Amino acid sequence: MFFSGVSRLTLPCERFTVVYKVWGSEEEAYARAKDICLEQTVEFPGDLVPPGVIAEEIVGRIESFQAYDEESYQVAISYPVECAANELTQLLNVIFGNISIKPGIRVEKLELPESILKNFKGPRFGREGLRELLGVGERPLLFTALKPMGLTNEELAELAYKFALGGIDIIKDDHGLSNQPFSAFEERVRLCAEAVEKANKKTGYHCIYMPNITAPYYEVLERAGKAKNLGAGGFLISPGLTGFDAMRVIAEDDSLGLPVISHPAFLGSYVLHKGGMAHQVIFGQIVRLAGADGTIYPNFGGRFSFTREECGKIARATAEPMGQLKAIFPCPAGGMSLQSIPEAYKFYGNEVIFLVGGGLFKHKDDLVENSRYFRELVESLS
Amino acid sequence: MFFSGVSRLTLPCERFTVVYKVWGSEEEAYARAKDICLEQTVEFPGDLVPPGVIAEEIVGRIESFQAYDEESYQVAISYPVECAANELTQLLNVIFGNISIKPGIRVEKLELPESILKNFKGPRFGREGLRELLGVGERPLLFTALKPMGLTNEELAELAYKFALGGIDIIKDDHGLSNQPFSAFEERVRLCAEAVEKANKKTGYHCIYMPNITAPYYEVLERAGKAKNLGAGGFLISPGLTGFDAMRVIAEDDSLGLPVISHPAFLGSYVLHKGGMAHQVIFGQIVRLAGADGTIYPNFGGRFSFTREECGKIARATAEPMGQLKAIFPCPAGGMSLQSIPEAYKFYGNEVIFLVGGGLFKHKDDLVENSRYFRELVESLS
Repeated sequence: MFFSGVSRLTLPCERFTVVYKVWGSEEEAYARAKDICLEQTVEFPGDLVPPGVIAEEIVGRIESFQAYDEESYQVAISYPVECAANELTQLLNVIFGNISIKPGIRVEKLELPESILKNFKGPRFGREGLRELLGVGERPLLFTALKPMGLTNEELAELAYKFALGGIDIIKDDHGLSNQPFSAFEERVRLCAEAVEKANKKTGYHCIYMPNITAPYYEVLERAGKAKNLGAGGFLISPGLTGFDAMRVIAEDDSLGLPVISHPAFLGSYVLHKGGMAHQVIFGQIVRLAGADGTIYPNFGGRFSFTREECGKIARATAEPMGQLKAIFPCPAGGMSLQSIPEAYKFYGNEVIFLVGGGLFKHKDDLVENSRYFRELVESLS
Repeated sequence: MFFSGVSRLTLPCERFTVVYKVWGSEEEAYARAKDICLEQTVEFPGDLVPPGVIAEEIVGRIESFQAYDEESYQVAISYPVECAANELTQLLNVIFGNISIKPGIRVEKLELPESILKNFKGPRFGREGLRELLGVGERPLLFTALKPMGLTNEELAELAYKFALGGIDIIKDDHGLSNQPFSAFEERVRLCAEAVEKANKKTGYHCIYMPNITAPYYEVLERAGKAKNLGAGGFLISPGLTGFDAMRVIAEDDSLGLPVISHPAFLGSYVLHKGGMAHQVIFGQIVRLAGADGTIYPNFGGRFSFTREECGKIARATAEPMGQLKAIFPCPAGGMSLQSIPEAYKFYGNEVIFLVGGGLFKHKDDLVENSRYFRELVESLS
């Protein structure tokens, strides 16, 4: 015996549950499930795990195991809440840290009790708060991006002005704009925020400009603070690049107090294979837990590969009960065109933000006119 | 025309290159390559890209295109250095941000010029520095982990003492230990650092203890600072959970000045499918760029699925010329046993850190003895 098996765990431990899809025959899948229980907690040979509290409480526990389809099984595994240490980083680690490196395992659903959810403020605005901020009643919200990269900040601000004048609700930086020599962050934010404000004075609308604050570790919060002072109305961030916890910090920071929208850059590998995490987990549950008010993902039928079913699951995860966490907006994007809006509306209904980027340049040769057309189209549908 | 096409780019732009493997017929693969050029820069319909500097310089450029095997092509695409904004986050975004969400594209190699590499201090110690710090000449370094999760800090410190007494060079926290109620961070670091110091006084060796500083955004640096003050000799961090730039900051911080080892938790999805990033890119080039002195990854033949070839490519990437960036150590792990060491030595030679965790409990019933055996075994081989 190497250990006394003493632990300071409070007993019995409250547990949270992760539902995995595990590929293989019944025997293989069950062996994989047992392996997950060890790998995500003690990382120790099963025959050496100290008996008592570690074997009985710390090691993951198979709560259910049932056939999913002909080649896979659905397994619910519970872990002690205390293992997650009240931290988003460690929670994600328990859910999928080491087993991200093992094939044939996919995270399908998180079932988090109040004792975990209470550690997260979650989305500050959510659907209702964002509608109130933007002064938009029942219809879908209208969202576009400043692009292409390489324009001067003056040119980007001119685009922002036209979009806002035409009635777009949220205008974000393209997610590739950071702090390039040809588009310095502070200047861009100042010019674009001013342009949107000028348009709002003409229209009476409440359009907001959301700069991209995805940045090196030290600069994420710094840029967010500067952007707020320069008139930004919210923040775009790519948690795949900054870490999810950086997004949580931005969302929960009361001195900022602005809405946050999550961009999926660098996260695609989690969903694009037999393994990883289901679309609704990473782009729905985790993004929401990390405080985003909206989650951008590529819509079906665009230039990416998500299916209708996958998009539907993401959209549902943005509003499913999750303790005190507010419902957030799905933001389908990625090659959306004005032509695709009616079908997308039929699919999503009113509780959606339509992100049309390049597609907004494809109606007529006048961006104010195109934005108006987008708005009237959506108003006529809802 | 929507744009004047004016840009503040310095011309001609210096460029960096990413080599992708792209699946499909020649026609499909070439179309994918053209698409990458747009997607990773302007994210704009090709026919609307403003002529002039944006079309000619900003948009990615296919530098070579050749058959890789029967089902895929190898494509080198260059981007302007300025697009990466001297930021690791934005560099990763240009390399693989949006296309992470498109199937059939894999990052195979980064070719970064001096103008990008000069922005990174890279590994502080590297192979030579770490050998000097630990007082180890030519042989492989010996590495183990404190586990299983659920032990008290006193028990973990007792393990650390025994490992250090037996001659292990580096003792890390298991990557699932963060700041749990049953293993509070500061107490753990204090007790384990003291235990290792006590053993060093007996042995005359220079064993170091590396706590896991993977933590919420605000706490990564805080824990690193506290750990240093409490006697930690280095840091373990999982950049998949904190973001790669958090690791870079820890590695480059002169007030810390300690070695850093990268753990692969939450990163497996990038390598486990036809797409994502090649093993040597994420666990070799990127980890090194982000300043780690050693990169942990699952060795072939263990409880994970990496092949000999993939492990060999990671090991080579740790030492390939990369500007001023020091060569770092491959740290094969994941189910390594004392029995597997001779074969691993044949494969890696001396420039390696062998991470044996649970396997160190499997020789005899005495951890000091097992650690000594590990050391003697490695000394006899090298």
